[in-house]
Amino acid sequence: MTTDRPAAQAGGPAVTVGIDFGTLSGRALVVAVDDGRELGSAVHEYAHGVVDSALPGGGAVLPPDWALQIPQDWRDVLRFAVPRALQAAGVRPEQVVGVATDFTACTVLPATWDGTPLCELPGYEGRPHAFPKLWRHHAAQPEADLIVARAEESGQPWLARYGGKISSEWQYAKALQVLHEDPEIYAAADRWIEAADWIVWQLTGEENRNLCTAGYKGIHQDGGYPDEAFLASLHPDFAGFTAKLEHPLSQLGTPAGKLTAEAAELTGLREGTAVAVGNVDAHVTSAAAQALDPGHMLAIMGTSTCHIMNGGVLADVPGMCGVVRDGVVPGMWGYEAGQSGVGDIFAWAVRTAAPYEYAAEARRRGVSVHELLTEKAAAQPVGGHGLIALDWHSGNRSVLVDHHLSGLVVGLTLDTRPEDIYRALIEATAFGTRVVVEAFGQAGVPVTDFTAAGGLLKNRFLMQTYADVLNRPVHVLASEQGPALGAAIHAAVAAGAYPDIRTASAAMGRLNRHAYTPDPARAAAYDRLYAEYLALHDHFGRGGSDVMHRLRALRNQS
Amino acid sequence: MTTDRPAAQAGGPAVTVGIDFGTLSGRALVVAVDDGRELGSAVHEYAHGVVDSALPGGGAVLPPDWALQIPQDWRDVLRFAVPRALQAAGVRPEQVVGVATDFTACTVLPATWDGTPLCELPGYEGRPHAFPKLWRHHAAQPEADLIVARAEESGQPWLARYGGKISSEWQYAKALQVLHEDPEIYAAADRWIEAADWIVWQLTGEENRNLCTAGYKGIHQDGGYPDEAFLASLHPDFAGFTAKLEHPLSQLGTPAGKLTAEAAELTGLREGTAVAVGNVDAHVTSAAAQALDPGHMLAIMGTSTCHIMNGGVLADVPGMCGVVRDGVVPGMWGYEAGQSGVGDIFAWAVRTAAPYEYAAEARRRGVSVHELLTEKAAAQPVGGHGLIALDWHSGNRSVLVDHHLSGLVVGLTLDTRPEDIYRALIEATAFGTRVVVEAFGQAGVPVTDFTAAGGLLKNRFLMQTYADVLNRPVHVLASEQGPALGAAIHAAVAAGAYPDIRTASAAMGRLNRHAYTPDPARAAAYDRLYAEYLALHDHFGRGGSDVMHRLRALRNQS
Repeated sequence: MTTDRPAAQAGGPAVTVGIDFGTLSGRALVVAVDDGRELGSAVHEYAHGVVDSALPGGGAVLPPDWALQIPQDWRDVLRFAVPRALQAAGVRPEQVVGVATDFTACTVLPATWDGTPLCELPGYEGRPHAFPKLWRHHAAQPEADLIVARAEESGQPWLARYGGKISSEWQYAKALQVLHEDPEIYAAADRWIEAADWIVWQLTGEENRNLCTAGYKGIHQDGGYPDEAFLASLHPDFAGFTAKLEHPLSQLGTPAGKLTAEAAELTGLREGTAVAVGNVDAHVTSAAAQALDPGHMLAIMGTSTCHIMNGGVLADVPGMCGVVRDGVVPGMWGYEAGQSGVGDIFAWAVRTAAPYEYAAEARRRGVSVHELLTEKAAAQPVGGHGLIALDWHSGNRSVLVDHHLSGLVVGLTLDTRPEDIYRALIEATAFGTRVVVEAFGQAGVPVTDFTAAGGLLKNRFLMQTYADVLNRPVHVLASEQGPALGAAIHAAVAAGAYPDIRTASAAMGRLNRHAYTPDPARAAAYDRLYAEYLALHDHFGRGGSDVMHRLRALRNQS
Repeated sequence: MTTDRPAAQAGGPAVTVGIDFGTLSGRALVVAVDDGRELGSAVHEYAHGVVDSALPGGGAVLPPDWALQIPQDWRDVLRFAVPRALQAAGVRPEQVVGVATDFTACTVLPATWDGTPLCELPGYEGRPHAFPKLWRHHAAQPEADLIVARAEESGQPWLARYGGKISSEWQYAKALQVLHEDPEIYAAADRWIEAADWIVWQLTGEENRNLCTAGYKGIHQDGGYPDEAFLASLHPDFAGFTAKLEHPLSQLGTPAGKLTAEAAELTGLREGTAVAVGNVDAHVTSAAAQALDPGHMLAIMGTSTCHIMNGGVLADVPGMCGVVRDGVVPGMWGYEAGQSGVGDIFAWAVRTAAPYEYAAEARRRGVSVHELLTEKAAAQPVGGHGLIALDWHSGNRSVLVDHHLSGLVVGLTLDTRPEDIYRALIEATAFGTRVVVEAFGQAGVPVTDFTAAGGLLKNRFLMQTYADVLNRPVHVLASEQGPALGAAIHAAVAAGAYPDIRTASAAMGRLNRHAYTPDPARAAAYDRLYAEYLALHDHFGRGGSDVMHRLRALRNQS
C-alpha cells in the first residue's frame, strides 16, 4: 500500500475496527480510515455455535425449529477476535479511532434493566426461553400467523410496510412465544433487546437502540410501536410489551457512547474509543458496497438473497420485507426485499441431482461438485437445456409472499442432465431477482444500479447469468468481508472522521463496477425464457393453479 | 412336474417351440402342449446387436436416429438357440409338433421376390438403406409428418384407427425415407416386408404375411391398403408402393406352412413341422397372459408400456396407437395403446437424481440403485413427498399424442429426496396408465381386467402402486418369457393341438390372478393425487400452457 499518508507518517494510519457477528462466528476487521484498505482481521468461532437440539451441558432438549445462542460466545468475539485482528493488522490501540458492530437479525434476547441476559441469572440457566433466540429460530410461526391475522382484522397501517407479513423471526412473534410458553420468563424480562443493541451495551455500558432493527424487526414506524389495543388483541398480558422495547432510537452512524474501561480491558482497545450504534449485517454491507444512493440495489446472495435499497420516497412495493425511514442511512427510506431460497437450492441440487460419476470426477479433479456442475452447465447456449424452473423450494418471499409454494421443473426429457437442472435453477433464481427488480420499478422506486455481495460471488458463471437475465451491468462488492467493512465505515462516521455514512462509504467502500456486463444475444434469449418463467410464476403463484398448496396440505396430513 | 400324462409315457410330451426375436437377442422356448409348462430355453445374442453408428466391417457411418439390423443375426437364432433349447428341455425333434415366432415391430426390410434381403446382394452391402430398419429407427420423422399431413388434408378414413398419427417407426414412413434418400434401393426392393414375416419365410420357404403387422404397422384396414392417389400425394414414385406389400394376409394362429428341409437342417427340427404365421412380441404375449377376452387389458411394462386389448366393437379411443380387426385374435378388434416413457424414466432418475451416497450404499449392500430407491421410496405414506410429476420425458403417446411434451416435477422443497422424486415418477406412470384405462372406458370399450407383463414386474412396490392408483386388482403374467410362451401357444394352434388361440391360451397360458389388490386407504389418497395429475396433464397437454412446446423449440434452435 502507499506509505506517504500523514497518519502513516505519525506512527501508523488512523483505523477503525468493524466487528461482524455472524451465525457461527464473529469477525473483527481493522480498516484504514482514509481509504478503507483492510489491514488485518481475525475470526472467533462461537463455542456453542447454534443451539438447536439441547441447552448446553446436557440441558433441556429443544423442540423442532428452535435456534438459540449463548451471550458469552458473543463476548468472546470481543475478547479474542479484536486483539488478534489488531495484531494481524500491526496497529496499536492508539490508532483505533472508532469501533462498530453488526449482527444477525432479528436475534433477540430477554435481559434485566442492567443488560444481564436472563439466561445468565441463577435459576434461569435451564429455561430455554431465557436464552437469546437466533434469527433462524422458527418456532414462533403460530404467533406470527396470529399477529398478521389480528393486524389484518384491525387494519393496522404498518402492515403494508412489511409486505403484509410479519415474520416469525421478528421481535413480536418471538416475544409472544415466550409469553405463551414461559410467562415467568416473559415477566422477568425487563428488556427485550436485539443482540445488535445488546453487544453495543457491552461496549459502552449503556443501553442504546438503533433505528434499523427497531424498524425492520420491531415494527417501529412513523415514530412509534404498535399500540396497546393491538397488542392486547394478541394476548391480554401482551398489551404492555413495548415497555420492554421503549428507548430513544439512534440514527445509524452516530456514536452510541464510548468504550468502557471494562470493554477496553476485554478488547485491548483504549477506554473512550468511539462506539457506533448497532446495525444489521445485511444493511451495513450497503456502505461497504457503495450502494447507498437511491435506486442502488444491493443483493446479498448466499443461501438466500437479501435486497437492500434506499429510496427518496415511500412506496408500496409488493412483497417487500420492510421499508423503514432512516433504516439504512439517515434521511432515506430503506427498502428490504428478498428471495427465500437461492444458494440452498443449489445445495439441494448437489445433494439430490448430482450422480456418483460427478462426485467421483469432482473428487479426482479436486473441485467441488458445485464447480463441476457449473463448468458443465456453462458450456451450453441459453435455452439449450429446454428447462424452466421455479425457485420456490423454500416458498416465495418476493412479490408473492407465500411460504407454501414449492419448486417446479418443467421441460424434462430423457436427455436432461444434472448440469441442465443445476443451470435451470441458477437461471430461476436470476429470474426471481428480476421479478423483484421489476416490482420496485413498477412501484415507483426504480432500480438504477445492481450490486451483488455475498458467498455466491465466487461463482462467475452465476454472476454473468444474473447480468444477462437482468440485462444490466452487475457491480460487485470488492471485499470478502462486506459486513465487517461496512461496520468499520460506520465506526469512522461515529468517530467523526467523515461527516456522514455516504461520504465515508465513497472513501472507504470497495466496489468493482461493471464487473459483469450483459451479452446482448444471451439477454435477448433470456427475455423469452423470462416470459415463460413469469407465466409459470403467475399460474402457480397467483391462483391459476393451487396445486402447490394442495400438495403441501396432503404432505402435512400424511 | 407331473409324470402321469399320456404323452410323457409315450416317449415324452408333445411340445412346441416359440422363438422370440427381440432387440438384442433371440430366445427359443420349448413348451409342453398340454399345460404350457416351460421345459427349456436358450438365448442367442445378435452378433451385431443394433447397428446405429456404422455399417459392419467399417462401412458407412450412419446419421443420428438410425437403427439397423443384420438378417444373418436372426438366422443365427434359428441355428443356435433352437437346438440348444431342445437340448436344455431334453426333448427330441419328434416331440415338436409346431413352431412359431414373434418379432419386434415395425422392423422391416427390402427384399427380392425370393426373400433375399437387399443388403445381402452383391453391390448393396455398403448401402445403408438396403438393410433392415429396426423398430427404433427414428430417422423417418419428416416422412411420418408428411404422411399425417397429407392424410389429414385428404381426410383418409384410416387415420382415426391410429389415433390420428402414423409413426415414423412404421412401414410407410420408413419406405418413403428409402425412396427419398436412395431411390435405387427403393426400386430394387421387390418386397417390403416385416421381419416378423421374413423370418417365417426362412422357415417355410414361402412368403406369408400376417394380419397383425399389416394392420398395426402397414395401415391395412377394412381389407385394403391406402390407395394410389394418397400414396402419389406423398411422392409421385410412391404411388405403387403397396405392390411391394400385396400378398394374402393370414389369420394369427394359422399355419403359414411347413418347415423346409433347409430350415430343419438349420434348427434341428423335423422337416414338415407346422410353422405358425408371424406375430409381434407385444401382441403375442396376450396369449401367454390369458388376456384375450374383450376388456382384458395387457400392459407390457418395460422401458415403455404397450397396452393390448381385445374389444367386441370398433370404437374411437383417443390416442390409441392402432385398432385392427383380427389384430390379436381372429374375430375381434385388437386395440393397441401405449405410454412412450416408463422404465426409461426411472433409468433417467437413477442416472440423474441418485447421489453419490446412494450409489455407494447400493454397492455396499449388493442391490441395484433402482432397488435402493424403491426401498426408500416405499417407506412413506401416499402424498408424503408432496410431489406430482408428469411422465412425459419421451413425450406423450397416450391420449394426447404429442411427442413435443416433456416431463415436469412440482412440489419440490429443500427436503425433497431422490427417493421422493423416484416415487413421484413411478406414480406418474401409474397415473398415465389410469388415463389410458379411463379413455378406453369412456370410448365404450371398458377395461374389465388389467394384467401386467414385462420387465417392471420385478418391482413389487411399483406393481402395488399401480393396483392402488388404478384401484383395481392387477394380474400378472406368470412367465418370464411371455413373448416366447405366446409364440409357443400360437404354434400349438397352428399344429392343430387346439381349435383356436383362446382355447390354447386357457390351457397353456400362465397367469397369477389378483397378484396385487388395491389398498382402500391408499387408493382413496391416490384419487386426490390423480385429480392433481389430471389438472396438470390438461393444463400442459391440452393448451392451457404451451410452455413445453416453446421450450423444445428454443432448445432445438439453440
